[in-house]
This record gives sequence, structure tokens and C-alpha cells, in this order.
Amino acid sequence: MKQIALIMGSDSDLAIAEKAADVLKKLDIKFELRVMSAHRTPDKVLEFAKNAKNLNFGAIIAIAGKAAHLAGFIAANTRLPVIGVPVKGNDLGGLDALLATVQMPSGVPVATVAIDGGANAAWLAARILALHDEDLAAKLEQEALTMAAEVELKDAKVRGL
Amino acid sequence: MKQIALIMGSDSDLAIAEKAADVLKKLDIKFELRVMSAHRTPDKVLEFAKNAKNLNFGAIIAIAGKAAHLAGFIAANTRLPVIGVPVKGNDLGGLDALLATVQMPSGVPVATVAIDGGANAAWLAARILALHDEDLAAKLEQEALTMAAEVELKDAKVRGL
Amino acid sequence: MKQIALIMGSDSDLAIAEKAADVLKKLDIKFELRVMSAHRTPDKVLEFAKNAKNLNFGAIIAIAGKAAHLAGFIAANTRLPVIGVPVKGNDLGGLDALLATVQMPSGVPVATVAIDGGANAAWLAARILALHDEDLAAKLEQEALTMAAEVELKDAKVRGL
Amino acid sequence: MKQIALIMGSDSDLAIAEKAADVLKKLDIKFELRVMSAHRTPDKVLEFAKNAKNLNFGAIIAIAGKAAHLAGFIAANTRLPVIGVPVKGNDLGGLDALLATVQMPSGVPVATVAIDGGANAAWLAARILALHDEDLAAKLEQEALTMAAEVELKDAKVRGL
Amino acid sequence: MKQIALIMGSDSDLAIAEKAADVLKKLDIKFELRVMSAHRTPDKVLEFAKNAKNLNFGAIIAIAGKAAHLAGFIAANTRLPVIGVPVKGNDLGGLDALLATVQMPSGVPVATVAIDGGANAAWLAARILALHDEDLAAKLEQEALTMAAEVELKDAKVRGL
Amino acid sequence: MKQIALIMGSDSDLAIAEKAADVLKKLDIKFELRVMSAHRTPDKVLEFAKNAKNLNFGAIIAIAGKAAHLAGFIAANTRLPVIGVPVKGNDLGGLDALLATVQMPSGVPVATVAIDGGANAAWLAARILALHDEDLAAKLEQEALTMAAEVELKDAKVRGL
Amino acid sequence: MKQIALIMGSDSDLAIAEKAADVLKKLDIKFELRVMSAHRTPDKVLEFAKNAKNLNFGAIIAIAGKAAHLAGFIAANTRLPVIGVPVKGNDLGGLDALLATVQMPSGVPVATVAIDGGANAAWLAARILALHDEDLAAKLEQEALTMAAEVELKDAKVRGL
Amino acid sequence: MKQIALIMGSDSDLAIAEKAADVLKKLDIKFELRVMSAHRTPDKVLEFAKNAKNLNFGAIIAIAGKAAHLAGFIAANTRLPVIGVPVKGNDLGGLDALLATVQMPSGVPVATVAIDGGANAAWLAARILALHDEDLAAKLEQEALTMAAEVELKDAKVRGL
Repeated sequence: MKQIALIMGSDSDLAIAEKAADVLKKLDIKFELRVMSAHRTPDKVLEFAKNAKNLNFGAIIAIAGKAAHLAGFIAANTRLPVIGVPVKGNDLGGLDALLATVQMPSGVPVATVAIDGGANAAWLAARILALHDEDLAAKLEQEALTMAAEVELKDAKVRGL
Repeated sequence: MKQIALIMGSDSDLAIAEKAADVLKKLDIKFELRVMSAHRTPDKVLEFAKNAKNLNFGAIIAIAGKAAHLAGFIAANTRLPVIGVPVKGNDLGGLDALLATVQMPSGVPVATVAIDGGANAAWLAARILALHDEDLAAKLEQEALTMAAEVELKDAKVRGL
Repeated sequence: MKQIALIMGSDSDLAIAEKAADVLKKLDIKFELRVMSAHRTPDKVLEFAKNAKNLNFGAIIAIAGKAAHLAGFIAANTRLPVIGVPVKGNDLGGLDALLATVQMPSGVPVATVAIDGGANAAWLAARILALHDEDLAAKLEQEALTMAAEVELKDAKVRGL
Repeated sequence: MKQIALIMGSDSDLAIAEKAADVLKKLDIKFELRVMSAHRTPDKVLEFAKNAKNLNFGAIIAIAGKAAHLAGFIAANTRLPVIGVPVKGNDLGGLDALLATVQMPSGVPVATVAIDGGANAAWLAARILALHDEDLAAKLEQEALTMAAEVELKDAKVRGL
Repeated sequence: MKQIALIMGSDSDLAIAEKAADVLKKLDIKFELRVMSAHRTPDKVLEFAKNAKNLNFGAIIAIAGKAAHLAGFIAANTRLPVIGVPVKGNDLGGLDALLATVQMPSGVPVATVAIDGGANAAWLAARILALHDEDLAAKLEQEALTMAAEVELKDAKVRGL
Repeated sequence: MKQIALIMGSDSDLAIAEKAADVLKKLDIKFELRVMSAHRTPDKVLEFAKNAKNLNFGAIIAIAGKAAHLAGFIAANTRLPVIGVPVKGNDLGGLDALLATVQMPSGVPVATVAIDGGANAAWLAARILALHDEDLAAKLEQEALTMAAEVELKDAKVRGL
Repeated sequence: MKQIALIMGSDSDLAIAEKAADVLKKLDIKFELRVMSAHRTPDKVLEFAKNAKNLNFGAIIAIAGKAAHLAGFIAANTRLPVIGVPVKGNDLGGLDALLATVQMPSGVPVATVAIDGGANAAWLAARILALHDEDLAAKLEQEALTMAAEVELKDAKVRGL
Repeated sequence: MKQIALIMGSDSDLAIAEKAADVLKKLDIKFELRVMSAHRTPDKVLEFAKNAKNLNFGAIIAIAGKAAHLAGFIAANTRLPVIGVPVKGNDLGGLDALLATVQMPSGVPVATVAIDGGANAAWLAARILALHDEDLAAKLEQEALTMAAEVELKDAKVRGL
């Protein structure tokens, strides 16, 4: 099975990356956690992006805040699916990172998820890998049932209030 | 090869859908163009989403404006990758559709692209399908070269100004 | 008398729901508190919405945050009045939930109240029920007088400062 | 049957009011179209709001732009359900009117619909009246089917493209 | 000398009102502190506004948050200068109150100051009264010199860092 | 009677200034129309602001767009009431000018009116002058009646539709 | 004298670039106009940025819209001053490009000018070059006088109205 | 070597100024730290701006919040490069200061950096001075390497997690 690259623009994004890592672990998806900066180590990012397909990555999750260029820069240098997670900073509630991640020009898409949505980036990566992995697809169906059951449990609980 | 579902919430979104269709045609990806509304034909959407995997779809592109629920509603009822295209309406510049599409809760991701970004939805779908289709992967590499060449041509032109 | 459905998209919205419940209790309006998710238990929501009229509900209050689809999804599957309460999340101050709740397409209205406005959702539901319940209408007039008296008491207090 | 008050803050809002009027006419709901300004004729608005119940109104639709106070001002002076339609002006895309309409304090709710959403204000009013009018309820179910059929017709059309 | 009315929409705005009161006291301007709500005690507000000129008020400061209608409602019922102070709530950073206060229609102006700008409302009221009060005008000149001196003191201090 | 200074930051603001001028003329208030730029002719602005009181101005209206500093700069150099009109530019709907005008620091207030609200700046100036001019006060009361009558005429018209 | 690089992300930005070019020509500053895309020709951008100092550029102006990464990407690969011009697109009024350009992380600054502010990018570049070019500095002083004179001419004109 | 002026609009901006000072010290760039207010000590600012070139300043960093006029006011009175740092206040996340700083009219540019971006203002100033100071240019290259090495160290660390 292909693995997932999980790249933070800064180690201050670790809490968000861990939300992605937790989902990937639960689904037994192999991943590589990295810190690479579009602005401080652009050469590393470039080299990584260009080699990502050969390294058997199936999708790249890029987590960054403020003028979040990481996902877009990677998407410009690979043809793999790139998933962008905008990170909320101290000021604009993450609107800056959201717009800098999602508003990509035609031909260079970034699959953007919610602000601070590390978990959903992993769920999206899993959906992509599951297209050719029936075991994973079955796990996703199972997880959807589990999530539904949790909601129903909470429902039962509040009905008893 | 898996095909792509290209779903508009309203036929007023046709211009955006056609940007997606043009890309898919250029890449020889089969797709099915549909109009289904999360709010007016919810049963149809639900049924479609639940059957989408069996109908051999590899990704579902959902195009909608305003309180854009279409992509999220589909993502809640399938485990296929769902790509959301927020459409700009008359008032808030598409910010409403963008937030209603991208801010999904954990476990139900929507891969969101730019406002009115029909073309990029198709490019993203192609990247997903190309993971297991080397011909398509080669086409994507070729298209990237073509886009680069077009930029270089424009560069040559303005240098001659 | 018809009762009110009070539905949270997640049990993390409980504090907002309790503001609604407190008002409904004060007005002796019967209500049913539920947790149902448009994205995690869509079938439950659908079934509930379709049966709501037969279950003698007079209005449905839907409380949800982020890409808040709950109210709109319910409104698409019932012809009862649906009241939406956008919930503030960690990032955009509730603007995402507000726009995702209020910007509904023609034919499928959601009666949207203020961000985190659980209490006002209940007051609005009460106004609707009071159209055919003179006792309740009298209570609403009385409550308006009480609120006015409270303001006047505070006014008297600050004038004495 | 109770009738609907359809109040514009200015005759420049007539196009939005007509969208509401068209829906009300289609549903055979009686309504009274008025121009009253919270800022230029406050006494008229006050008197109207206080008498609205006695005049057999079942809901009041208030349409206003910019610092839209009309709906809130009416809601402060009646206990009938008040529906607010924020109108888009020349500058902020209607965000000013939306926030001025929806962010009401506890106890004085305004049922807010989409920016320029005159039609949905009427659909919401109809849902409220239909709680005690089975003929109208049946019409609403029929209209929902008609809207669904129109979407399906468009769907059939694009599938044939 | 005319006095200033200092009106809060709710006693939760007291901290902002006190910033205004402190300035007015420093300048020996008489003022009356009140709590009146455009939505809960509209009749009181209306009566106050209509009598304000006769009660020898020279300007009315209105402090309110969320869908802040207080200043506009007062301005609609008096021809005195009305100064609006938008108050920041829990969610949108005060943008709702700012727009609901400042975006008034032609003919009914509200002199709007900064979000939570209680002090500046008082300074503005003082500028208005000083047009016909040379003692107050002299105090304002003196205060401007004092503020400048404070900045220069801080400047001297940081230069010594 | 004191006169009003009506200052544009650029002659591109002339349409907004004319809305103010029309109101001032209707009320027989003398005014001086000027073009002065906080950024291109700062010395002129400074000199003007410092002399404004001696030149018998009663209030200064400053009209500017984008990073609108004109009103604040004038307010820093006079103790007269300064009224700011934010002008909508090509991009952000006037939000930039609004915030740059209204968010003044304590001690240096700008009485801000609506985006492009030239007329209301004049109405506000008139309210200020009317505090010590009973003829003008009477005109303002008369104008309020006229505006009310116009609304009532429109009301009569739509009722006859 | 050093020259200026004037780089567009797309030839659709030409109108904005020409505003910069006009200023540079007026000041006799040599410049090179280029089209290079951070997303479509990243290698070209990278190579250009790394060589820019050796090619005797004194500052680099980067013009781009939407998720505008061009300026930041260049700034990450040179130590020359980089000036970013956010370009307004069809939807969010340029807010996306502004935030994507200005919100750079520490160590990699982009000197951001106004939305669509091509002219100001050139004026800023000129100020930088003028630090070591007294002829250019004199021209800038002269241009400031000319701009002031133009404002004064307009002032004279409106005073004569 | 030329020095840098580091000007705060208020001593409440000291934390942001210190981020700039730390960078300047690390690079051995001489600077002068000042407190000057565009609104409270406009004459001081004006005098400073007009003399800045003669005092051998190479760039002026202006730090201010809310309706941040400091940078623009300085830029209007000198032809030196002016760098603006918008400071986040209590309410709008710094959007007010950002727009008031960056949206300058043509001819009077402010080189704007990120909200609270004191450090980047210093880095930008250093890039400007380094154009004619090869020692400083070498330090900047060295610092870029150091920042890259720090990222790589963090990368090594998370890879070992």
C-alpha cells in the first residue's frame, strides 16, 4: 500500500499533525511525518515533492498557517494529490491560511480541508487510498458506522436527561 | 478506469461545471454530468451517494453556491473522495459557499478547491485517478509541461515588449 | 399543544441547547432534546425530518457549528418551520456556521437566529406556537413586560450610581 | 386564515418584496404590502407592530438594507413571529444588513433568511401558517414535489448533453 | 451648559460606559447614565429621545452590541447629535455592532466611534459642546497637550532603554 | 453662524462630496469645499486643521477612501468635531476606509458615518450646528417631517398596487 | 544603477504591471518585465530568484492574485528586498491575495503594497534605490512636489466651483 | 552604515517593537527606538519624518494598531522607505490595522509586513540596507542558512518520533 506524507511547515503545527497521525494509525496507514518549510527550506520541499511519487507516496498532507504556501508549492512540483490543512494563527482566525491554501490557480489544485482540520486531512487521504484497497475501504465503512453509533449513544443519553 | 461524477446543485452552476468537463475531456476521463439538489431532491442525492461506489465512480465533484451543502451531504453518504467547488453568488463573493463547503466536521472530509474552481476540481480528480493509472499520470505530467511552456511563451512575449 | 424538537449536531453544542431548553421550560412548552448529525447519522436525521409533522412537532430547532448543514438538511425534508442556531467554533467567530445556516436557496427556508442564540431560537418557536395558543401568547406578553421591568430596574440602579 | 405583513424599509427594496409577493400569491396567502421606515417613520412602525396581532396578521416580513433595524424594531413591539430579509447594498455585499438583522439579543428573535431572500421569507411565513392550515400544508408539499420535479427535469436535460 | 446622555443598551456594557463617564467627569461635563434597551424597553427609549432636547441634553451617547439598534433608534426620534459606540460581543469581534451602528440611511446619521470606544464617544461629545463653551474648548486644548506630553515622556523613556 | 469645511482627499471623491453639499445647501448652511490630501499635501492639511477654529468652522467633514487617514489626521490637529466619510474603492467594498476612519485611538475621535455616506455627514454637521441655532433646529424638524411624508406617500402608493 | 525585476504570475496581471512600469519609466529606472508562475514554472522562479542579485537587481516586484505565492516564494530564495502586489480577482475583492502575500513568517519578509497597487510597488522600489542614488532621490522629491501641486490645482478648481 | 528608525505609535506596542529590535541587534544594525503618535504628537512625527534622511536613517519602521496611520503619515513626509507593522488590537484580529497600513494611495507607498510582524519589519529593513553593505548581505545569507538548519533539525527530530 502507498504511504502518506504528513508535512508541517513548522513544528508549532505539531498538534494539528498529531490529529492526522492518530487517524492514519487507527486505519493502519503508513505515513512519514516531516517538518519542511516552503520559505526556509524551499530546496528540501522541492526535492521532496519531485521524488514523492517514486517514494511510493499516495498523497501528501501539508499543514501550514498564515500565508500558507506549503501545500501549493508542493502541488506545483508533483502530480500526486496534495491535501492542505490551513492552521489558525493568533490573529485572523485562520482565514489567511484558508485563503492562501484553497484559492489555487487552475491546473495546480490543493484539496483543502477545514481550518485546523488535521483529522479530516487524514480521512481524505484514506478515502483516496481506499479506491484501490478494499480492506481500507471496509475499515472506512466500519468507522462511519462507529461514528454513527457514537452519535446515537449521545442521543440516547440526552433523551434520558 | 473509474469515472467521475460531476454534480451541480442547480443548472445555474453550468458554467462552472463546464470548466470541469473541459478538463476531464482533455484528459479522456469519463464522467457523468448531473443536476441534483441537496435541498430540493435530497432523496436522489442520498441514493446516488450510496450507490456511487458500485457505479464505478472514483471521485464525486459537487458544485454549489450559497449555503453549499451538496458536497458535505454526499460525503456523509459515501466513502469515496468528494471534491467541493464553492460557487460565487451575487453577494458575499463566494465566502458563504467556501465556508459551507470546507468547514466539515472530523470524519467527513470534503476536498475543497477555489471559489468557482471547476477546472481545479477536475485536475484534482485526475490526480486521484492517476494514482493507479500510469497513462493518466503521464498525461498530467505532459499537461504540466504544456502549462509551463505557455507561461514561458508569455514570458518571451512580454520580454519583447 | 404541539411540541418543539431541539436537535444538536453534536453533544458539544449542549450549552447552547440548554439556553433554548431553559426558555421552553419557563414557557411550559414541551420539547424533545436530541443529538443527530447531518454528516454522521444522515439517515436518522432524514427519518426524523420526514416524520416530524406526524409526531406533532410544531417547529424544529437545529443547533450546529462550522459547515452547519443540520438545519438546512432538516428543512429540505419537512415542511415544518425550521429554526437554525449557528454555533461559534474555535476559529471564525461563528461566521462559517451563520452563513452555512442562513444562505439557503429559494423554497427551503431556515429561520436563522444569532450566533450561539439558543435562547432566541426558543423564543421564536414560542412565537410560532403562540399564534394558535392564547395562553402562550399571554405568557409571551408577560415575559416581555418582565424583561422590560428588569431593564428598568437596572436603569434605576445605574441612575443611583 | 391569517394574513402576512410584507414591509419594506424603502421602496428601493421593491424587487426583493416582489419575490416574496410572488410566492405568497402562488400559495393564495393574503398579504399587505407596506413601506415603513424604522428611521423615518418610527411612530408608524411602532403603531403597526403593536396592532399587528389584532389586525389578524400571522407573521411580519421586514425587508431592509444597510444598518437594517426594521425587523428588530418590529420584533421589539409585537409577539408575532417576525421574519427579516437583509438586503444587499452597494458596498459590503449585504453583510451589514445580515448582521444587523440576525444578531438580536435574547428575548427578541428575528427569523432571518438569506441576503435578498425575499422568496424564502414568504416560504417561511407559509410554513408557519401551514401549522394550522392543512390546505396550505398540502400546497407546500405539492410545491416541494414541483421543485424536485424541476430539478429532475434539468438533470435529465444535462444527462442528454 | 448642556449635559450628555450616556445610555447603555444593557448593564453588561457598563465597563464601556465607565470609560465615557471618566472622560466626562475629567472635563466637568454633566451627564446622566441610563440603561435603556431598543428591544426590551422601546417605549422608554422613544420617550427619552423625543424629550431629550427639552431636557437640555446636547448630545446622546448610545452604547450597544450585536445587532446594535440603540443609537439609530434614538437618532430616528431626536434631532440632537447621537454618538454610537459599537460593543464587541463574544463572536464577531464587534463587526456586527459596528456595521449595525454606522451604516445608517441618509437623513438619520449616527456619529460612530471605534469598537468599545467609550472614551472617544465622550471626547467627541466634548468637542461638540465646546463649540459654544470656551472654557471647555480650553480644557480640550489642555488635554491634547497633556496627551502629547505623556507620549513624549514615554518616548524619552524608551530612548533611554 | 459657523460654517462647515467639506474636504475631499482626492477629486475622485467629488460625487460623495456633492451629496453632502446638496444637504448643506438645502439647509442654508455655509460651507467651503476643498481638496486636500493627508498624504500628498500634509502641510496644507495641518495648517488648515490648526486654523479651522479661527476661520469660524463649526465642524469638518473629511471624505477619503482606502487607507483613509484624512479625518484622523485633521482630528489630531484641531479640537473641532471632525466627521469622517469612508469611501468605497474598487476592491474591499469600503471596509478598508471604514476601519481606517472609525478605529481611532482614545482622545482623538472621528465621528464616522456610513460608507459613501456624504449626505449623512452633512446631516450630522447640521445637528451639531443646530444645538445653538434654533432656525436650523426647526429646519431639521421640518426635514424629518418631509422625509416621513415621503415614506408615507410611497406607502400609500404600494398599498394601491 | 541597479535595475528592478517586475514579475507577473500571469499575463492577466499585465494592467497592474503596466502601472508599475509607467512609474519606473518616468523615474528612468531600468527594469525587466517577466511572466513567471510560482505554480506553473516553479523552477524558473527559483532560478531567477537565486540569480537575481548577480544580475544586478536591486528589488523584485512580484504581482499575483488569489493564493498569491509568487512574492513569498521569491523572498524565500533571495535576500534582495521583495515587493508584493496582491491582485484583485473575481470574488473576494483581493483579500485572498493580500493575506497570502503579507502574512509571511518571520525571516522571509515581503514588502506588501495595496491591492492592485502596481504603481506603489514601483514608488517603493524607487525609494529603496534612491538610498544610494542622489539623482533618483532628487527626482522623488520633485515628484512629491508635483503630486502636491496637482492636488492644490484641484483644490483651486473646486474652490472656484 | 545607515541606521534604522523604530517607531511605536504607543508604548503598548513595545512587545512588537522588541521583536524588531532583537533582529536588528543580531545583525549589528544600529537603530533608534522611539514612541511617537500620529494622532497625539503629529508635529513630532512630521519633524522627525522630514529630518530622517539627514539623520542618516536608511528606513523607518512604524508600528501601530487600530486605525494605524503612523506609517502612512511618515511616508507622506519623507522619501525614505517606510515599513509598516500592523498591530492586532482586542477586536478585529488586526484587520483594521492591516488595511489602514497597506491600502495607501499611489505615490506614497508603505512596505507592509504581517500583523504583529515586528521581526519581519527588521528583516526587510536589513535586506534594504544590505543592497549596499556586503557584510550585512553575507550575514543575511548566513541567517537564512541557520534558519534552514533549524528546520532541518526539527525535521530530524520528528522523523525520530
